Amino acid sequence: MKILLVGANGTLGRAVAAELRVRHELIPAGRRTGDVHLDLADADSIDAALQSVGPLDAVISAAGHVAFGPLLELTDVQWHLGLSEKLMGQVNLALLAVPHLRDGGSITLTTGVVSTDPIRGGASAAMVNGGLESFVRCAALELPRGLRINAVSPGVLLESMHEYAPLFRGFEPVPAARAALGFARSVEGGDTGKTYRLF
Amino acid sequence: MKILLVGANGTLGRAVAAELRVRHELIPAGRRTGDVHLDLADADSIDAALQSVGPLDAVISAAGHVAFGPLLELTDVQWHLGLSEKLMGQVNLALLAVPHLRDGGSITLTTGVVSTDPIRGGASAAMVNGGLESFVRCAALELPRGLRINAVSPGVLLESMHEYAPLFRGFEPVPAARAALGFARSVEGGDTGKTYRLF
Repeated sequence: MKILLVGANGTLGRAVAAELRVRHELIPAGRRTGDVHLDLADADSIDAALQSVGPLDAVISAAGHVAFGPLLELTDVQWHLGLSEKLMGQVNLALLAVPHLRDGGSITLTTGVVSTDPIRGGASAAMVNGGLESFVRCAALELPRGLRINAVSPGVLLESMHEYAPLFRGFEPVPAARAALGFARSVEGGDTGKTYRLF
Repeated sequence: MKILLVGANGTLGRAVAAELRVRHELIPAGRRTGDVHLDLADADSIDAALQSVGPLDAVISAAGHVAFGPLLELTDVQWHLGLSEKLMGQVNLALLAVPHLRDGGSITLTTGVVSTDPIRGGASAAMVNGGLESFVRCAALELPRGLRINAVSPGVLLESMHEYAPLFRGFEPVPAARAALGFARSVEGGDTGKTYRLF
């Protein structure tokens, strides 16, 4: 399969690439790295990137920033980051990908454990991730030509514990290679509307 | 209790008012109706409204518009409506209400059945409602002074079936008076971080 992988240079994206590139043709994409450049917060850049790569069998997003911080101290800019990039950025990627996907192709987005398992400091991330999971469940009903859409909700990544450990005390860290299995299952399986929870 | 009810003039809001006004002091609020005016899409107007009413025991939102329509035909304006009003409007109401709530007070927001039960045409509503439910679950961990926050997810309202029936074939309509029970349970009960599903 020919697969566009957005966020290919991130901690999760590199593990997804390692999982999939042995069986598929991967096109790495990112804001400043990869073969194709796009900014999830800029729909025009998403569209241009999709136009440039031609017909695809799968589009994966392992990207999307969101801010963590105390509920009553999160700024408008921090709320906006999650809304414009991880939430609407991934929604726009999904919608704009539709005409570029071959029949039966798939879209896979990334959410995260705080949609279902709350933590202090995670209100913005929870909102974004919960919104994405409900979006995926609903959008699956309307995609044409046998296209599928799923999400992967990884737990806190083992490789990111140096940064996120204080927020996720007691959570079992997930090796990025294990989280990457969710993307293989979405792309190579037959499900649609699902969220794979890797935690 | 002294309760600010945003969206008091809507189908759901009127039923919430009927349920609560027999036991509590209700301050009806709305964009153009009620004793206090505010626009959920305008954080300054929310803040001004809260300032004007003084200390409260509960803030309820039975408001927030969101667009329904075919997944691939929803416009940027339609996506933005749900994001700015029902999603961030209610989040902003919750956050801005905190300093105006007495110890042990409560915040109750409105989501809707499509967060968990997808329908064609509901992708934006699902995203907004799912985001709110995860936000509420997470925000509950950080509210100070015993403040509580919950959501009510009503099914399609019986009183709205003339408008929404084609989207919700086979769904059992919920009388607004039944959905209103969720708000009483949130305000007068002890739960926090919950979503009451009335469908």
